[in-house]
Amino acid sequence: MIDVNKVGIAGYGITPFSKEDKKIESVLLDSTKEIFRNNSKINKDEIDAVLVSTNNNSKYLSPILSEMSGIQPKISHTVESLCNSGTNSIVSAYSYIASGLADMVLISGAERYDSPGQILEWDDSRGEYKHPIFWASIFSKSYKRKFSISDEQLAIVSVKNHKQAKENPNALSKKTYTVNDVINSKKLTEDLRLLDCSRPCTGSASMILASEKKTKQLTDKPVWITGIGQKTISAGFTKNSSFSSMESTKMAGHTALKMSNKNIRNIDVAEIHDAFSVCEPMALESLGFSEDGNGMQIINELHSTDDFKINPRGGLIGSGHPLGATGIAQTIEITQQLQGIADKRQVDNPKSGLVHNMSAAATSSTVLILET
Amino acid sequence: MIDVNKVGIAGYGITPFSKEDKKIESVLLDSTKEIFRNNSKINKDEIDAVLVSTNNNSKYLSPILSEMSGIQPKISHTVESLCNSGTNSIVSAYSYIASGLADMVLISGAERYDSPGQILEWDDSRGEYKHPIFWASIFSKSYKRKFSISDEQLAIVSVKNHKQAKENPNALSKKTYTVNDVINSKKLTEDLRLLDCSRPCTGSASMILASEKKTKQLTDKPVWITGIGQKTISAGFTKNSSFSSMESTKMAGHTALKMSNKNIRNIDVAEIHDAFSVCEPMALESLGFSEDGNGMQIINELHSTDDFKINPRGGLIGSGHPLGATGIAQTIEITQQLQGIADKRQVDNPKSGLVHNMSAAATSSTVLILET
Repeated sequence: MIDVNKVGIAGYGITPFSKEDKKIESVLLDSTKEIFRNNSKINKDEIDAVLVSTNNNSKYLSPILSEMSGIQPKISHTVESLCNSGTNSIVSAYSYIASGLADMVLISGAERYDSPGQILEWDDSRGEYKHPIFWASIFSKSYKRKFSISDEQLAIVSVKNHKQAKENPNALSKKTYTVNDVINSKKLTEDLRLLDCSRPCTGSASMILASEKKTKQLTDKPVWITGIGQKTISAGFTKNSSFSSMESTKMAGHTALKMSNKNIRNIDVAEIHDAFSVCEPMALESLGFSEDGNGMQIINELHSTDDFKINPRGGLIGSGHPLGATGIAQTIEITQQLQGIADKRQVDNPKSGLVHNMSAAATSSTVLILET
Repeated sequence: MIDVNKVGIAGYGITPFSKEDKKIESVLLDSTKEIFRNNSKINKDEIDAVLVSTNNNSKYLSPILSEMSGIQPKISHTVESLCNSGTNSIVSAYSYIASGLADMVLISGAERYDSPGQILEWDDSRGEYKHPIFWASIFSKSYKRKFSISDEQLAIVSVKNHKQAKENPNALSKKTYTVNDVINSKKLTEDLRLLDCSRPCTGSASMILASEKKTKQLTDKPVWITGIGQKTISAGFTKNSSFSSMESTKMAGHTALKMSNKNIRNIDVAEIHDAFSVCEPMALESLGFSEDGNGMQIINELHSTDDFKINPRGGLIGSGHPLGATGIAQTIEITQQLQGIADKRQVDNPKSGLVHNMSAAATSSTVLILET
């Protein structure tokens, strides 16, 4: 029996993240072309919707990408929600398929290194400190103080993720670093060093989502989206009820796990939105991977055993963070892990994976559960 | 029996279209507040998704609107597709509800008079003539030549729509005009006068879409979205196969009517995307209201009998065209018509209505069918 609501990943394409100065239309096209190069079974005439996720100010990018790709979809529009634009487009594509309006949807996320989405002008609670390093600095101070974590301990996140990124051919970072390198990198605020930060970059990631029947026709290694959770608390950073945990992530994680009938202990591999070092242990705790304050224990253990379970592609810190592409790139990584084709990043025989993608100081979060 | 896929309009809010210089966040909030003023049964805690449709360059507007409105949705993001952003957000909301991811969705469309969506930089086929008046001029020349229509005959569209807008308290235009007024208004190109054009403006329109059960709880005059059709041909104006008909509108109309099991003869009232005078007869023909070249006959007859069947609120020419709000404002008009509460604009006892909303020289179109 075919489940009308079952949505699978039928193809994907991704290109290296870089500091290249390239038109957004070309960046979008790069990873879209990769999809068709990777999966010759996909028929462009059968693509019902084309969604672009980006913070770029150019308009009408979905029809532009469609024309450049030789696609004439029914539905086409851009989806924007700052740093989790990518997973918002995935959830929208899911709903177009599950509702029956579409059978096959192309999603393409892209950003340029100079994206206007890096600053949230509206959030007056940040005062003149509108750059994300300032909320990240407050998160870091609050988290370190509450759980007695040192800068050196927190630096392990960056060390681990740069190490893992070295095995990701598309990552922006090509280097590995020691704890001392992180601590001695440029001090941006009292609590934040340069190597604690993900970096904006030029990059793109695209996927084809499809109905169960279509997915099975197009790939012999189908991966299914079985859980979706989203929550928006606010747009203002200071509306967060805590600066040492992520309320929107807790609620999105709970919803996604419930929808997929899973427990967090069933998750074998996860992409976590480490926009800054402190986000990784905070998110792990808010998702339930550990008790509050114990996220660094998990990270330390995985790092010391070279287990790539958390952020196998190197996270945002190692891979770079092209905003509109990030959520799609994370989802491609989990798909490759579940397909067992993640090369040197491969985690041991995973069956279930999780994607965590958030925006604007965790004022909103998306959590996806993927299964083979 | 409750149909899980049935989606209804449970509430709406709209504010006057103007040339006001106001922050986009305030414009969005204006019509959103009207929803709750108009329908006190709507519980903000039950709103699962907030979608903003706009061409404004501000980011993260859905979480911002949510915070300002006291809503903490699951799903929140912006939808952009130039002039049909509004109906794209309606279709997206429909799919979130029909797929089961949401039970109630707030959509809010807004634009400022200085919207960056008025120019499509990418379309190099327009040469240096990037403003929409240039494609509209080519459409006008082509349509007039092919069907032997004079400037005076085409001017009736503007005369009729300004007349109808006078009965719309939210319309930008407050005046009526004669054929001579239109012909003698400022000549913008060889084939286009100022009064043939819709004008950019500041405005906003918002709706609540909900599942069948929820809609019935929230309103005793439910209106249902029973047909949806969308098509994107290209992003480039010169890829249109004809400059005297609208290919994307033909296909979207066909799909929408088929989905709702309706024939175009069953449509009692329609909102047509008259960005320029020529668009109204062209769209009527492409939708099947008349044979090719006969659209002006319908328009003339309706005008001479004061029948408001086509563009009762005055169309884009009379109401003004705040891009991201237009498709939602059109849908609110049809809803009010079907509810029988359209005051002096009221068409005689309509049961089925149609919304036609397009972008960028009809390179993409949305058609919706609404029923009581």
